[in-house]
Amino acid sequence: MTDVASSTRRFTFSAGHRYQVDAWSATENERAFGRLTIPHGHNYTVDVTVRGPIDATTGMMMDLAELKRVVAETVVERFDHADLNADPLFRGKVPTTENIAIVIWDLLAPKLGLERLARIRVFEDPTLWVDYEGA
Amino acid sequence: MTDVASSTRRFTFSAGHRYQVDAWSATENERAFGRLTIPHGHNYTVDVTVRGPIDATTGMMMDLAELKRVVAETVVERFDHADLNADPLFRGKVPTTENIAIVIWDLLAPKLGLERLARIRVFEDPTLWVDYEGA
Amino acid sequence: MTDVASSTRRFTFSAGHRYQVDAWSATENERAFGRLTIPHGHNYTVDVTVRGPIDATTGMMMDLAELKRVVAETVVERFDHADLNADPLFRGKVPTTENIAIVIWDLLAPKLGLERLARIRVFEDPTLWVDYEGA
Amino acid sequence: MTDVASSTRRFTFSAGHRYQVDAWSATENERAFGRLTIPHGHNYTVDVTVRGPIDATTGMMMDLAELKRVVAETVVERFDHADLNADPLFRGKVPTTENIAIVIWDLLAPKLGLERLARIRVFEDPTLWVDYEGA
Amino acid sequence: MTDVASSTRRFTFSAGHRYQVDAWSATENERAFGRLTIPHGHNYTVDVTVRGPIDATTGMMMDLAELKRVVAETVVERFDHADLNADPLFRGKVPTTENIAIVIWDLLAPKLGLERLARIRVFEDPTLWVDYEGA
Amino acid sequence: MTDVASSTRRFTFSAGHRYQVDAWSATENERAFGRLTIPHGHNYTVDVTVRGPIDATTGMMMDLAELKRVVAETVVERFDHADLNADPLFRGKVPTTENIAIVIWDLLAPKLGLERLARIRVFEDPTLWVDYEGA
Repeated sequence: MTDVASSTRRFTFSAGHRYQVDAWSATENERAFGRLTIPHGHNYTVDVTVRGPIDATTGMMMDLAELKRVVAETVVERFDHADLNADPLFRGKVPTTENIAIVIWDLLAPKLGLERLARIRVFEDPTLWVDYEGA
Repeated sequence: MTDVASSTRRFTFSAGHRYQVDAWSATENERAFGRLTIPHGHNYTVDVTVRGPIDATTGMMMDLAELKRVVAETVVERFDHADLNADPLFRGKVPTTENIAIVIWDLLAPKLGLERLARIRVFEDPTLWVDYEGA
Repeated sequence: MTDVASSTRRFTFSAGHRYQVDAWSATENERAFGRLTIPHGHNYTVDVTVRGPIDATTGMMMDLAELKRVVAETVVERFDHADLNADPLFRGKVPTTENIAIVIWDLLAPKLGLERLARIRVFEDPTLWVDYEGA
Repeated sequence: MTDVASSTRRFTFSAGHRYQVDAWSATENERAFGRLTIPHGHNYTVDVTVRGPIDATTGMMMDLAELKRVVAETVVERFDHADLNADPLFRGKVPTTENIAIVIWDLLAPKLGLERLARIRVFEDPTLWVDYEGA
Repeated sequence: MTDVASSTRRFTFSAGHRYQVDAWSATENERAFGRLTIPHGHNYTVDVTVRGPIDATTGMMMDLAELKRVVAETVVERFDHADLNADPLFRGKVPTTENIAIVIWDLLAPKLGLERLARIRVFEDPTLWVDYEGA
Repeated sequence: MTDVASSTRRFTFSAGHRYQVDAWSATENERAFGRLTIPHGHNYTVDVTVRGPIDATTGMMMDLAELKRVVAETVVERFDHADLNADPLFRGKVPTTENIAIVIWDLLAPKLGLERLARIRVFEDPTLWVDYEGA
């Protein structure tokens, strides 16, 4: 029998964003989002969870150094000290925590494998976070 | 296809409590609960998780400002700097972390909707917490 | 030459309290303290700092196991799961964070030595704390 | 004899900023500041420390509810979900953590009193912070 | 109807370890594990989750003082200030976070009961953790 | 007038150590240090504080990217996933938290400048830390 475990690694990046639905007037955006329409930013924390069988020899579910490298190159380098609204991945999308989680999932799924990627958790700050599990 | 996500918001309040089963003698309470029978208190942390489809236009699963308002009015205002044993919701109930989680669930479910409320997590302190998912 | 360092050890206890000046009427207490007059409580965190020369052989400023034992016996055992207003040390004193810091200083100074005890920091919660350095 | 203590209260706000010296060319700014020139943001944490004698009757160094109100109105309302570069207080000043600390000091000193305000600590993130004590 | 809840208690211990597959040469170990082959260590955090019906009288899912005693005696006493590679439970097993979680599960399952033990989470540090749920 | 500020940057590394005075017998070491004589380890956190005037143009006390590079190269690369007792800097020295702070000070002082380096704080774990200010 093979044991199955989940491993999670935490990453951080600081980015800017503002909430704006392009199809809405300034007044509509203001009414819906209030001060979220003003350019501001956050120290985002991202927890990437992978899940699978543990290798009996190495005792590892996945090489976490590889996980670190993949997420650093794919996510952290792209979004750290970036203006999320200027990133093509957020074209036509409000950069809410929900959408950030989905965008990160979509960036990582091809590299980590859908059978292994289990969850993306994004914290906008220590009191507010979103979980996305790919559906 | 609509994406589904969970959003969690963290709240805190400080309250007093003591463990006491009214039907028991002082000796029985003391034997079961030890120093928990003495009036003391905690900085409670409550994580409220809601779950549902993400609105394609706003990119939001729920208006988290509304979530903040509802929980602040319903839970934090009631229990912050309160003596839990004196609250009618704990009449005949020991204010354990488990019961606090259930009471908070019961307060929030009618306001947030059972189809949306996913989990209440209550921390008595950073080393001890309870999850309740409504059943 | 002897190197000097400060060592700090962190302790926690959960206690109940309420703000009340005995010489004041209920109305005066209510006006000054608001909901702080209601019995509630906190998970207190106490940082005890000692300062002195480092022993050249052991590389230690103080035996921190001894520090742990002294503070656990003198402070944590006394105040954990206690009602601070019922403790004789708070007779005629409002158990504010400031007074808790002074009371802990006065309990520890004879055991740790005034020449070594450098600071007591008491957190009422992670957003509010008091430093007392003995004067 | 009157006991003296320091009390610290923690505040948070999320803001956007970018590093830019107006007198420099884009190339010079880029060379000096790298990706810090791109609009991004942070969850800032601000610790405001006041120091003074403890009132013998109330056991309080300062009414911390008043401290909370003053800092919330003066600092948090102004900078939360704001673009720091657009605030007149940062005209001609790079909104570094150092300058944010000084600006907050200058906002609070007239309201809290220079004899009482002891230190402003600003965290840009949990790994980077600045202390300013008014000189 | 009986309410069901999960309760989690957090524990910590500091231990040493190094990664080494006994059947591999030094070069193979070095290639697979890099600096993980050097004796080093961590402050491990272990979250033990138990799940079950809440007792209607006491309001408790489990006596958490008993949980504390069992985990302290079975896990913390054994692994705190220990060299994991020297423990017979890790004979022929690399002391990865995954294997530490499984070993702790196997130690606790007979004492807490498989029907009650729900999850072991082990943090190697605040940025890296593993969940094991017994299969 | 030039404003002066302190800037602190936090670093982490995981290392192994054991307490042993070479001149003592095993029994003497055991009596003095107990289980600290067994090879174990910690996730160390190091806060490096520099202090000085703020540059009026850049608004920076020091280029914190340079601070990060210097400490990473000088301290983190050397001690992360290392056995402190095997490092020549700890020859004849017990790798206590106090001595680790002094060793880090001595490594950084020539690179950062004694007039600028203000304090080294080393946490062995979140409940235990040492401050060293160079004397």
